[in-house]
Amino acid sequence: MRAITISEPGGPEALVLAEVPDPEPAAGEVLVEVAASAVNRADVLQRQGFYDPPPGASRYPGLECSGRIAALGAGVSGWAVGDEVCALLSGGGYAEKVAVPVGQLLPLPKGVDPVSAAALPEVVCTVWSNVFQVAHLRPAETLLVHGGSSGIGTMAIQLGKAIGARVAVTAGSAEKLEACRALGADVLVNYREQDFVEAVGPDGADVILDVIGAKYLDRNLDALAVNGRLVVIGMQGGVKAELNLGKLMAKRAAVAATGLRARPLAEKAAIVASVREHVWPLLESGTVRPVIDRVLPLADAPEAHRLMESSTHIGKILLEV
Amino acid sequence: MRAITISEPGGPEALVLAEVPDPEPAAGEVLVEVAASAVNRADVLQRQGFYDPPPGASRYPGLECSGRIAALGAGVSGWAVGDEVCALLSGGGYAEKVAVPVGQLLPLPKGVDPVSAAALPEVVCTVWSNVFQVAHLRPAETLLVHGGSSGIGTMAIQLGKAIGARVAVTAGSAEKLEACRALGADVLVNYREQDFVEAVGPDGADVILDVIGAKYLDRNLDALAVNGRLVVIGMQGGVKAELNLGKLMAKRAAVAATGLRARPLAEKAAIVASVREHVWPLLESGTVRPVIDRVLPLADAPEAHRLMESSTHIGKILLEV
Repeated sequence: MRAITISEPGGPEALVLAEVPDPEPAAGEVLVEVAASAVNRADVLQRQGFYDPPPGASRYPGLECSGRIAALGAGVSGWAVGDEVCALLSGGGYAEKVAVPVGQLLPLPKGVDPVSAAALPEVVCTVWSNVFQVAHLRPAETLLVHGGSSGIGTMAIQLGKAIGARVAVTAGSAEKLEACRALGADVLVNYREQDFVEAVGPDGADVILDVIGAKYLDRNLDALAVNGRLVVIGMQGGVKAELNLGKLMAKRAAVAATGLRARPLAEKAAIVASVREHVWPLLESGTVRPVIDRVLPLADAPEAHRLMESSTHIGKILLEV
Repeated sequence: MRAITISEPGGPEALVLAEVPDPEPAAGEVLVEVAASAVNRADVLQRQGFYDPPPGASRYPGLECSGRIAALGAGVSGWAVGDEVCALLSGGGYAEKVAVPVGQLLPLPKGVDPVSAAALPEVVCTVWSNVFQVAHLRPAETLLVHGGSSGIGTMAIQLGKAIGARVAVTAGSAEKLEACRALGADVLVNYREQDFVEAVGPDGADVILDVIGAKYLDRNLDALAVNGRLVVIGMQGGVKAELNLGKLMAKRAAVAATGLRARPLAEKAAIVASVREHVWPLLESGTVRPVIDRVLPLADAPEAHRLMESSTHIGKILLEV
């Protein structure tokens, strides 16, 4: 099969389409013929040599895909060859085929086309596990999403609104904020011009979904409500920062940091099952939809990474096989 | 009535027994004739001028008491004059009488004498709310308790063991660690001689109950298990410290910080109700018991504070009225 390989760590040109051996589905896995994959910031880090795949994972990039089941590994039940699916991956999505543990498969949601479904698994599982399972966002609470126009951001806005929360977002341009507004965001903050703590208001945010990390840590504490929960899922603004425990205690607040990729199979399967139960109906009813910036051919993975690094996109960047 | 007043912020001698007006129970409160109160570190901070009572609270120190109901405020049902109780307070326990919101009352547990019961409300509510309601300690998990021989520590050990957790403790002397062992602690760490991260072992602690704050923050992250929860309830080792979000994310861990005193009435009442449901049966069966260092007369509050500040005590220091 053909896959995007990483010749050696470096810039986008390090992504090279090459002929490689087909993956074999192990016991408890299926082989998926990939329709499309999607680009995540973690793929950029992996390309740069900063984020090695966990043991046992494909060496090729790609943390999610859509497609069709082409073969079943030993002991697989409940799925059949030909089923249209999308899947959360530990790697290997930038390829014609990928082996997937069954616990990470989701059926193609009714009303979503097979390519667009590649935009869903990583963002839906990330938002669901962090905003709802870790931070327990409740109706009428305020959710602050940093990077509201990103793939993660556009899904967080929609899921926050779907459960009846007030949603505040930060983004770096009027165009991005307009996209967030169209998805239902209530408070729009251009971080180049406004202070998000002030914009969120004195009652603060009950839950903050953050991809910046160190640079925002202290201001995020300032923006939290009493009993607030800050969940850090990215560290684009650095890893280490001073934590003022007095501020945290005065608000009886919590800071969590998580990721999906390194979790054991059972935890991923539990998240995927919860997503299927709670989020899939919202996709099938049209309440929530994938937001796609553009679809490029797999061979254009370098261009897709350049686009991701330029941060000019709104929503997901897909790679069609 | 007589109460311990704080003449002006300062050393233990600032605590002066004086004749003061009786408190009046407001609507939804009862008047408790105090049998005993207990000393908490927060009382020392209040005496020093660093921890003012929240608005509406008594100006006298004392965050818990035992006693007998002497009068009912308007609208109180379910309690009667003469009932033996103990209570979580926002202040005013170092006195002959104190007004208490009904949501903060607990019945005297069967088998616990009226004076000893003063050792319970603050430690039980603190341990229960943090270790179980915030950090969700589960059977077979490991709980690390810093300051295992303190009032909080001795209760955390017992409640951890009661639900089937493995309990590790730190303390500063062999005598203190022996007391922790007698209460069921599995791993004993003399922090003057041993590194608690090493002692807890490579699997780490699922939950850490910490009173040190800044000084231990980074090592606490090192000691956490994957999916671990650090709960900071004291800052004896400072307020600000560098947080390594990368470490936190690698463990998918969380840091929370909380306190009881500033919570709104409804939250305190919810904690007290949960304690009554879950912990009171353990006290009445003898599975868990108050650990008392000594009982001093109320007039000896200065001596009780000196003792607390010397950190030579094991368990609670009570003040009998």
